[in-house]
Amino acid sequence: MTYVSFPTNKPLDFVAIGRLCIDLNANEIHRPMEETMTFTKYVGGSPANITIGMSRLGLNTAFIGKVANDQMGRFITDYLQRNKIDTTGVVTDTTGAVTGLAFTEIKSPTDCSILMYRDNAADLKLTPNEVQEELIAQAKVLLISGTALAKSPSREAVFQALNYAKKHGAVIVFDLDYRPYTWTSPEETAVYYNLAAEKCDIILGTREEFDMMECFENNESSDDKVTASKWFNHSAKIVIIKHGKDGSIAYTQDDEGHRAKSFPAKVVKTFGAGDSYAAGFLYGVMQGWTLEKSMEFGSAAACIVISSHSCSDAMPTVYQVEDYIERCNRNEITAS
Amino acid sequence: MTYVSFPTNKPLDFVAIGRLCIDLNANEIHRPMEETMTFTKYVGGSPANITIGMSRLGLNTAFIGKVANDQMGRFITDYLQRNKIDTTGVVTDTTGAVTGLAFTEIKSPTDCSILMYRDNAADLKLTPNEVQEELIAQAKVLLISGTALAKSPSREAVFQALNYAKKHGAVIVFDLDYRPYTWTSPEETAVYYNLAAEKCDIILGTREEFDMMECFENNESSDDKVTASKWFNHSAKIVIIKHGKDGSIAYTQDDEGHRAKSFPAKVVKTFGAGDSYAAGFLYGVMQGWTLEKSMEFGSAAACIVISSHSCSDAMPTVYQVEDYIERCNRNEITAS
Amino acid sequence: MTYVSFPTNKPLDFVAIGRLCIDLNANEIHRPMEETMTFTKYVGGSPANITIGMSRLGLNTAFIGKVANDQMGRFITDYLQRNKIDTTGVVTDTTGAVTGLAFTEIKSPTDCSILMYRDNAADLKLTPNEVQEELIAQAKVLLISGTALAKSPSREAVFQALNYAKKHGAVIVFDLDYRPYTWTSPEETAVYYNLAAEKCDIILGTREEFDMMECFENNESSDDKVTASKWFNHSAKIVIIKHGKDGSIAYTQDDEGHRAKSFPAKVVKTFGAGDSYAAGFLYGVMQGWTLEKSMEFGSAAACIVISSHSCSDAMPTVYQVEDYIERCNRNEITAS
Amino acid sequence: MTYVSFPTNKPLDFVAIGRLCIDLNANEIHRPMEETMTFTKYVGGSPANITIGMSRLGLNTAFIGKVANDQMGRFITDYLQRNKIDTTGVVTDTTGAVTGLAFTEIKSPTDCSILMYRDNAADLKLTPNEVQEELIAQAKVLLISGTALAKSPSREAVFQALNYAKKHGAVIVFDLDYRPYTWTSPEETAVYYNLAAEKCDIILGTREEFDMMECFENNESSDDKVTASKWFNHSAKIVIIKHGKDGSIAYTQDDEGHRAKSFPAKVVKTFGAGDSYAAGFLYGVMQGWTLEKSMEFGSAAACIVISSHSCSDAMPTVYQVEDYIERCNRNEITAS
Repeated sequence: MTYVSFPTNKPLDFVAIGRLCIDLNANEIHRPMEETMTFTKYVGGSPANITIGMSRLGLNTAFIGKVANDQMGRFITDYLQRNKIDTTGVVTDTTGAVTGLAFTEIKSPTDCSILMYRDNAADLKLTPNEVQEELIAQAKVLLISGTALAKSPSREAVFQALNYAKKHGAVIVFDLDYRPYTWTSPEETAVYYNLAAEKCDIILGTREEFDMMECFENNESSDDKVTASKWFNHSAKIVIIKHGKDGSIAYTQDDEGHRAKSFPAKVVKTFGAGDSYAAGFLYGVMQGWTLEKSMEFGSAAACIVISSHSCSDAMPTVYQVEDYIERCNRNEITAS
Repeated sequence: MTYVSFPTNKPLDFVAIGRLCIDLNANEIHRPMEETMTFTKYVGGSPANITIGMSRLGLNTAFIGKVANDQMGRFITDYLQRNKIDTTGVVTDTTGAVTGLAFTEIKSPTDCSILMYRDNAADLKLTPNEVQEELIAQAKVLLISGTALAKSPSREAVFQALNYAKKHGAVIVFDLDYRPYTWTSPEETAVYYNLAAEKCDIILGTREEFDMMECFENNESSDDKVTASKWFNHSAKIVIIKHGKDGSIAYTQDDEGHRAKSFPAKVVKTFGAGDSYAAGFLYGVMQGWTLEKSMEFGSAAACIVISSHSCSDAMPTVYQVEDYIERCNRNEITAS
Repeated sequence: MTYVSFPTNKPLDFVAIGRLCIDLNANEIHRPMEETMTFTKYVGGSPANITIGMSRLGLNTAFIGKVANDQMGRFITDYLQRNKIDTTGVVTDTTGAVTGLAFTEIKSPTDCSILMYRDNAADLKLTPNEVQEELIAQAKVLLISGTALAKSPSREAVFQALNYAKKHGAVIVFDLDYRPYTWTSPEETAVYYNLAAEKCDIILGTREEFDMMECFENNESSDDKVTASKWFNHSAKIVIIKHGKDGSIAYTQDDEGHRAKSFPAKVVKTFGAGDSYAAGFLYGVMQGWTLEKSMEFGSAAACIVISSHSCSDAMPTVYQVEDYIERCNRNEITAS
Repeated sequence: MTYVSFPTNKPLDFVAIGRLCIDLNANEIHRPMEETMTFTKYVGGSPANITIGMSRLGLNTAFIGKVANDQMGRFITDYLQRNKIDTTGVVTDTTGAVTGLAFTEIKSPTDCSILMYRDNAADLKLTPNEVQEELIAQAKVLLISGTALAKSPSREAVFQALNYAKKHGAVIVFDLDYRPYTWTSPEETAVYYNLAAEKCDIILGTREEFDMMECFENNESSDDKVTASKWFNHSAKIVIIKHGKDGSIAYTQDDEGHRAKSFPAKVVKTFGAGDSYAAGFLYGVMQGWTLEKSMEFGSAAACIVISSHSCSDAMPTVYQVEDYIERCNRNEITAS
């Protein structure tokens, strides 16, 4: 059954708006960052990672965002272009903003943390005037990411992008990606997340993220069905709620929730799991696959990324994902 | 014909959220403010004025807002109470914010201006947590005012109030009240005004205010019908567009626009015309009157206010408005 | 004996730098401000008041400061000019700053308070580039006031004015005028007050103000002699420490402290006492009078101001002060 | 001849206050940073580098500053301790500030640049209350660095440190270290640099830095003698003005300026030259050497640092500097 219909006459498969930054991944891992001496630079930021993932999977993609007018900003734009992502929507800041940074600390495969630099970050300076309507008009899917709602004027840019997507009939995906440190309070976050989510067709987030969005409501038992049905009363067709180790459930208006099997992986770190999952899942849905098959594809893509040192750079091709699934099916891959 | 149905089983007729401030009106008028030596203090702020107006007209009213912890703030709360307005929703700031001020300059009946003090204003510090759901749950009508959208956290408080009004079935009125000096840019304003207006049943504003809201759209000829039909696609039932001297037009989904006759007045100043019009018009609509009769009632209320020195303090009773209309009908009042 | 030598070949007797604002004095007094309905507008700000006082006493004066580009700012500049104060050093803000306000509340002659509006105040926007060296080069005396040190760039403007005064040999007077609400902390205040005071010839302040300046030191018994001798080790010649009802003491390097007799007054309010005292005292010192006679003259000037409704507007002429002293000597004036 | 007398009865040779940050040095050099993939982490910041240099030269040292409450901050404190620097004066921020970063780009030995992260930097959050008087009381020398004057409250902390140094008789060294991007304007910088320099015994800076400090003065030909004599009128005993390739000149009150010979070096990058020069020079002066010998020692120390990949980590011991000088004298080292 098809839950979401994608427009067919559009040249661009996918456009995302939001955070574009630099990951500085510890080279000496399995120790505290105090003892890390060298770092490797990668493009990062959840919507950037997902877009790179979609491009690796063969889709026609573009990005809308803002980069600093410095070596980091130029590296990002160049990397996107080398990954065949249209960057006509990526503007350069002129106010002296810097590129957001994320230093990663990998103490163990399951004990990872991030040290963020988000003060005066260029990606949060995108204005609604700088959002190119034409790019959204040409796209089948617009993905928004919660971090871009954290501050003005980026917040307004996202709402304007939603207006353009509604006007031109793009399917809208909301990756919640809630990062508390860039927000004033959970209540502020909830207000804007809810305003944005009302306009979205597909919503992906963790149970904790949906809990935050319900801080003014009565859903104290964190009932997934209550959460999903709230959004079905607005625009949503699919609501994916992630329960960590217990797996993800995709809710649709007509059923109890779709689950898919998971795969083993030799985990290096947990970063990037959500972004690669989102890319794989959305790719499947856009191919017209069942939700279960799409979720499986997303899970396998995530396994590949968490087995690697980087997030963006490790995003797999379709062949790599299919190969991974087959090797799992042949029991050639076991958990670390 | 009834365009808007009001809930009937609610104890409160009207609650407003937003700006609460002090007007300091020049006592020596018809001269530049440089030559004014004394000022008289009144409660001001568009939603406060409208609420005072509704209370004077005999409705059961309440206010949601924030006042400074000083003599000005206490004066405001006291004045509202003396006007029988429920102030359980008026909280007191604890951060050292001040009361917003508006010094008025009346050079001539048609040449009026305002000198605003809006830095660190207490009313803009209202948080979404401080909005009492219970007050909105008990109210037939919630009125929001555009100035309260100008800054966080007041902006979030208004969106949360809209959520409560939707949840509890209150009719929502949006008085645009656009004051450029408290906003970063017209584009920022347009984004939030549009997000709020999507949820409103009755929208009142000037042609220029609606133009600002359409800055991302193509309505270059400022066609009222295009403007109104945009909002009928969302929640609106009545859209009033004010054309200054050319009068106001109330649009409804089924017609060409309702107009009403206007009345002469001995104008002292133009301040307060919109607020008293809004109070009078909404009163009429809530009585089940025709739009034309409601608009006439609003116009007469406005005439009374612009013939006086203050805004809030001059808000008329039903008897005063009816009396004014009758005297006009007997040609006892002529324009100044 | 002469404690301070003033340059003789300079056309300007006195120039002050700093706060320029508006006082809004309650007309209905002896009640809380909540019950005050009208206010009268006066020029205010301690250094402005002192300069008006010096001009009324017949000296050739100028002011260095910044006013808002609005009706309040134009009123201030105009009032200074009407009081024969050179305003070529008064620049107009171009950033949208407002005029600082002080609403006065007079509950009783001894229970007075002020409600201040100091957010985004134009006077604190004066930059060091805007300080006209020529004005200071031509002046016998430069007076600085502590409130101008509260924020950048006004803080830097004052230090640059001190540099010019040192370079050109002006006598420097520091009126401490400490207003806690415009400062981040007493420690921040102490650092800049001490840096400025090191360069000053005459320092006037209350015992509490000197205590604040000693927050990093050991003068726990608030010993005046310890305080004064600290400044004699820098540039000071006269240090006046005010002890409220117990009167003021003028310290000089060679003695135990000069005191002067005080006068009775029919007190309306206490505002303005310090400013008129400073003007009267400095006038006397500049005439070559003894410290005692200068202090008496300052006290009488203060009595006149506190018997009136305004501060600036009540600043007396030499004749008025002499007349007041004579009437006191004839026992024609008794305390209220 | 001895130009500066150091106190002899103090247990600590040297304490510095100010910037403490992280250098991220490109590992792949001689290319634009866009093409750099990995970075190595070092402690950085001019006063931190100088203190590390002094400690390597065998002096008893301490640091006064503030670090972020994160892995970077803990790395810094730990590194200082491993270099035998007393860190009882290094406090940890509690407001969520981050560690300042400096990404270095080495396109060629003479074409180097820095990409700075200074927003919300922990070192600029040091308050005057957090400056431990006891550390300064015990030190022969206090070094201040201009970057710490860039923002409040660090600015006030430096002025308070100067007060303590004056009170306890420490020799005060001012390393100008002007970084325009952390300041509002050159005029703001000049005001505070001049206020600080008035209290200092030894001032080191480039000709361009002294030019900035003279922006309100007439020294249009940038005459070193005019510059130096200005400071001799205050507290200065030695003023070192650096003329880039033309070498440095040390001025003293009695002469024309001391120059010293320079040494060849195989330059990797220019960063750190000034810090190692300062450490070497001050070490010499504290040993009672002539200015010429001290300057030579500083030059040789600088040659060692600019021949290495890092700044802090390459700071030499006395043996290494002497060895370098001897090898130069034997012509074993030639310029790259």
